[in-house]
Amino acid sequence: MLTVNAYGATSSTEPLAPMTIQRRDVGSHDLLIEIKYAGICHSDIHQVRGDMRGGTYPFVPGHEITGIVTEIGSAVAKHAVGDRVGVGCMVNSCRECSSCRAGKEQFCAKRVFTYLGSDVDGSITQGGYSTHIVVNEDFVLSIPEGINLDEAAPLLCAGITGYSPLNRFGAGPGKHVAVAGLGGIGHVAVKLAHAMGAEVSVLSQSLKKQEDGLRLGADHYYATSDADVFRELAGTFDLIVNTVSADIDVRSYLSSLAPEGVLANVGVSLKPVSLRLVQLITGGQAIAGSLIGGIAETQHMLDFCAEHEVGAEIEVIPADKINEAYDRVLASDVRYRFVIDIASLH
Amino acid sequence: MLTVNAYGATSSTEPLAPMTIQRRDVGSHDLLIEIKYAGICHSDIHQVRGDMRGGTYPFVPGHEITGIVTEIGSAVAKHAVGDRVGVGCMVNSCRECSSCRAGKEQFCAKRVFTYLGSDVDGSITQGGYSTHIVVNEDFVLSIPEGINLDEAAPLLCAGITGYSPLNRFGAGPGKHVAVAGLGGIGHVAVKLAHAMGAEVSVLSQSLKKQEDGLRLGADHYYATSDADVFRELAGTFDLIVNTVSADIDVRSYLSSLAPEGVLANVGVSLKPVSLRLVQLITGGQAIAGSLIGGIAETQHMLDFCAEHEVGAEIEVIPADKINEAYDRVLASDVRYRFVIDIASLH
Repeated sequence: MLTVNAYGATSSTEPLAPMTIQRRDVGSHDLLIEIKYAGICHSDIHQVRGDMRGGTYPFVPGHEITGIVTEIGSAVAKHAVGDRVGVGCMVNSCRECSSCRAGKEQFCAKRVFTYLGSDVDGSITQGGYSTHIVVNEDFVLSIPEGINLDEAAPLLCAGITGYSPLNRFGAGPGKHVAVAGLGGIGHVAVKLAHAMGAEVSVLSQSLKKQEDGLRLGADHYYATSDADVFRELAGTFDLIVNTVSADIDVRSYLSSLAPEGVLANVGVSLKPVSLRLVQLITGGQAIAGSLIGGIAETQHMLDFCAEHEVGAEIEVIPADKINEAYDRVLASDVRYRFVIDIASLH
Repeated sequence: MLTVNAYGATSSTEPLAPMTIQRRDVGSHDLLIEIKYAGICHSDIHQVRGDMRGGTYPFVPGHEITGIVTEIGSAVAKHAVGDRVGVGCMVNSCRECSSCRAGKEQFCAKRVFTYLGSDVDGSITQGGYSTHIVVNEDFVLSIPEGINLDEAAPLLCAGITGYSPLNRFGAGPGKHVAVAGLGGIGHVAVKLAHAMGAEVSVLSQSLKKQEDGLRLGADHYYATSDADVFRELAGTFDLIVNTVSADIDVRSYLSSLAPEGVLANVGVSLKPVSLRLVQLITGGQAIAGSLIGGIAETQHMLDFCAEHEVGAEIEVIPADKINEAYDRVLASDVRYRFVIDIASLH
C-alpha cells in the first residue's frame, strides 16, 4: 500500500481539505501514475455536496486525470514507465458483457467509477485530486505528444462527453451542428465539431460569451433568451449537442432540427419533459442521451485532439484554491475549466 | 383529361361510394398507370372520417397502389408500357431542397401527397381507389418480378414505413429488434427484420396473434398487458419499431432498450408523453420518429422484399366491400391488410 497526499471532502457541507489516502500495491496489470493535473468537473461538485447519490465521506473527487507512469506491473503491455497518460471516469469494468465487448464500458453494469466506485478488491475508489493513482492498464489512455497535460486533463471527461455524440451522430462536413451551453463540455464540443468540419452554432442563454464562441470555432452564436431565435432557426440543425444541465425548452430545440436531426443530451436535467411523439415523426427526428464514451473511443478522441490541436481552455490553480473554484463553477465564473496543479499537493 | 371510375368519400359521415374523377393528360414525364390493386391504410380511414386535417370532399383515398403502365410521356426514361409499377404516399416534390437532394422527399416542404395534395397544376390529388392514375415517372416505383401485385400494394406505405427505421437504425445480424404492434405496418416489419437477419420479438397487447407472429418470422412474442413482461425485458432491445397508434408507456419501452438502443416511432399518438432526459443519458438511448421513406429507399425496400420473398399478408376485397373493411380495420379485425381488387371498379 502507498500512502499519498490528496485533497478531498469530509462531508457535504465542509470545505474540501488536505488528507492522505491509500493506493493499492501495483498489481501485475496495474500502472502507478504520478498525477500532474486533475480537472474540476461539475459532477465532482454535485458529488461532494451530496446532490446525486448518498455520499461516503471522506472521499477524493477527480476523474479528469493526466500524469506520468512511474511504475508498471509485471504483465503490463500497453504502457511503459515515463509514458504520458490519462484516466477518465472509469477505472475498470467486467470485460465480458456485451457493452464491454462492444467497447462501451460506460454501460457495463459492473463498471468501476474513478471515485466512489466499488473497486475489484472491494474498496471504494478515490479520485484524482491526489499525487498518485494505481489503475489497471486497460483503463489508462495515452496522451499524444502535442497536447499539454494540463489542457488534456478535461478531455478525459468533458472532452469525450462532447466527442461521443458528435462522432455517433455524424458531425462532419456538410452538417450543421449546434452546441447548447458554452461551459466545460460545450467549449470543447465547439472546437471538436469545428475540427470535424461541421458548420457550428452555439446556443447560449445570452451573447455574453459570443466572442469566445467564435474564437473557439463557432460560425454562428445565438441567444436562446431571444424569443425570435427559435423561429429563425426552424429546421436548421442536423445535430444539437445539449450540454445544459438546467431544463431546456425541448419543443423549441426540436423545432430547430433539420429532418432526421438529433437532439443529443449530455447535460443531466432531472425534471420530466413533455413531448408529442408526432413531433418526432413528421420530421423523423430523435432525442437521444449520451454518456461519456468507451475507452477505445476516448483514445480516438485524444488522438483526434492531438491531430487537430484541440485542448481545453483552462485556468490552472493550486489545490488550496479548490473550494473557491467550486464556488466559481457554480456561479458559471470559469472559462472554461479549472485544472488543479497537483505539484501543489506534494 | 381522362374520366375514370373511383370509389371515394363524399363527407366524413357518409359511406364511401362509387364516383368518377378526372386524371390529367399524360405529360412528357408522366405515366398513365392502370391500377390493379390498392391497399387500405389506416390513415385513409382517418382522412375520410375527418380525424386529421380539414377534409375536402369528395375525394378518393388510397396510397398503396400497384398496376401496369399503359401509356408514357414523350420524355419518360425510367419506365415503359407494360411495366409492373407502384405508387406510394407521394406523387411529387420540389426536387431542389436539401431533403429532395438527399433522397428524403418525404420531408420536402412541397411534397405532393397522393391524395388531398396540391398537385403541380394546382388541382387536388386523388388516390388509388380508382382504375387509373397519372404520375410523374420519378415517383413511380418498379415492382420486381417475384412479388405479386396484390401483396406488393401495402409495401408502398406500410412496408416502407417499417423498413425505413429498420434500415436507418441498423437492424441486422446480432441485433435484437422488437416490433410493437402486429398490424398492417407491424406484420411487414416483423418479416423485414427477420429477413435482415435480426433476432425479432413482437410486443403486442395480448398473445392473441402469437401463432401468426412466430410464423411471420418472430423469435419471441410478448404480451405487454402482462405486468412482468417489461421487468423481464429490461435492457434487451437494440431497436424497437413502435407501430402502435395508441398511447404506449414510453418509460417501460425505454427500459427494455439495450445501451444505445433506439425506440423508433411510426405510429402516431397525439397525447404528450413525459420523460426524464436522464433516463436517456444513463443508457445512451434515443427516442426517434420515422416518416414513411424516400423514393430511392422505397425502391431498395421493394428489391429487398423480392429477394427475400417478403409481401404483405392480405385479404383481397371488391370495391363494394370498402365500407365494411373500414369498420373491420377499426375493430382490428384484419390479418393484416385489406387490398381492393380494382377490377371490381371497371
